Amino acid sequence: VSAPRIVDLRAGILEKNDLLAAGLRERFAAAGTSVVNLVSAPGTGKTELLEQLLTRMAATTSVAALVGDCATDNDARRLARAGAPVRQIVTEGMCHLEAELVAQHLDGWNLDGFDLDAIDVLFVENVGNLVCPASYDLGESLRVVLLSVTEGEDKPVKYPALFSSADIAVITKVDLADAVGFDRDAALAALHSVRPGIAVVETSARTGAGVAELADLLRAPASLTATA
Amino acid sequence: VSAPRIVDLRAGILEKNDLLAAGLRERFAAAGTSVVNLVSAPGTGKTELLEQLLTRMAATTSVAALVGDCATDNDARRLARAGAPVRQIVTEGMCHLEAELVAQHLDGWNLDGFDLDAIDVLFVENVGNLVCPASYDLGESLRVVLLSVTEGEDKPVKYPALFSSADIAVITKVDLADAVGFDRDAALAALHSVRPGIAVVETSARTGAGVAELADLLRAPASLTATA
Repeated sequence: VSAPRIVDLRAGILEKNDLLAAGLRERFAAAGTSVVNLVSAPGTGKTELLEQLLTRMAATTSVAALVGDCATDNDARRLARAGAPVRQIVTEGMCHLEAELVAQHLDGWNLDGFDLDAIDVLFVENVGNLVCPASYDLGESLRVVLLSVTEGEDKPVKYPALFSSADIAVITKVDLADAVGFDRDAALAALHSVRPGIAVVETSARTGAGVAELADLLRAPASLTATA
Repeated sequence: VSAPRIVDLRAGILEKNDLLAAGLRERFAAAGTSVVNLVSAPGTGKTELLEQLLTRMAATTSVAALVGDCATDNDARRLARAGAPVRQIVTEGMCHLEAELVAQHLDGWNLDGFDLDAIDVLFVENVGNLVCPASYDLGESLRVVLLSVTEGEDKPVKYPALFSSADIAVITKVDLADAVGFDRDAALAALHSVRPGIAVVETSARTGAGVAELADLLRAPASLTATA
């Protein structure tokens, strides 16, 4: 009996989020900041890849990161090693980031002297979750979904909402592909079945493979529309 | 402004779920069925471990499984190879199983000739998600959380709600421990920091390590209370 109320409420929450996200998108555009929303299952390697991207891109691009987690500031502390500005969002159990949380943390960061206008690429690392972040627009320019070779090739078809909403797919931990018997063709087929033509980059944070290619793509996302 | 409404509604949903779960728990007890709720991130290896458990336990125990996924019946088809009764719950995007879904699928299964009274151990494989399943009691006897060596040792402290609600922790894919530089002591410390004294079983579905030990534990959960 409560189902219709839940659906109404969810639609209301999403509508409010969409409005806030639209405002964020305008704010990012005015600041000249490209925003990358990183989404994946827990343990796919978002933080390790982000550390490499921040380190590599910082030489030529002004980068920063907001990192979300249910609990702990482990990720912000890890990422501080890359030297770029990083701020943690602790969701206190919430399973995804919402536009309001991003806006709040940006405001707090600005009060601490952070200047969005000076940032070319802002990464937002979402909570590790292949379901709930799909519905929450954060005002991002690009949504990048990660899939590790250790997770199973059929994850895109089992979690189609998130994978079909992404602009770029990153296959991570490719150095482990042989050890886990990763079926690359099956993974690519699964990705393209839910998101035909999606750009795919294969990376290993351990060997550094693919990180430069991904960094180039994130610096010049216009090239995506040309190839998509 | 909508926050109090959301909190009220969530509490209402959880209260309704808890009532339904209590009913399921009575039903399982009356049938003499022990129910194991398997929870983990996507790609931790729930289905592969479950296939091995079903195959191994079937020789001496009457086993069956309900498997949840957002989309596809891939898992039920995989598990059918084990020869035990298996039924898929497709949540159509919902990020966790609820008691109502379990009850509905049990009723449908009974109509198809399934007899809960004849089952000693019923596995319920939850949706791959380290956040949302924490709050939803399914009437289970045991909640078993899986953590793979490829995911990162700090997952228990980053997702404390789920790990602290579990009765048994299973570390999976231990055959990959060396390849990924898994820090076993750190993982055990993280597990025990959020759930002191939790029973931990280390498994590899590939080599079969630990599967017999886990099967014994699930057949005779009373031994848990003696050691906890």
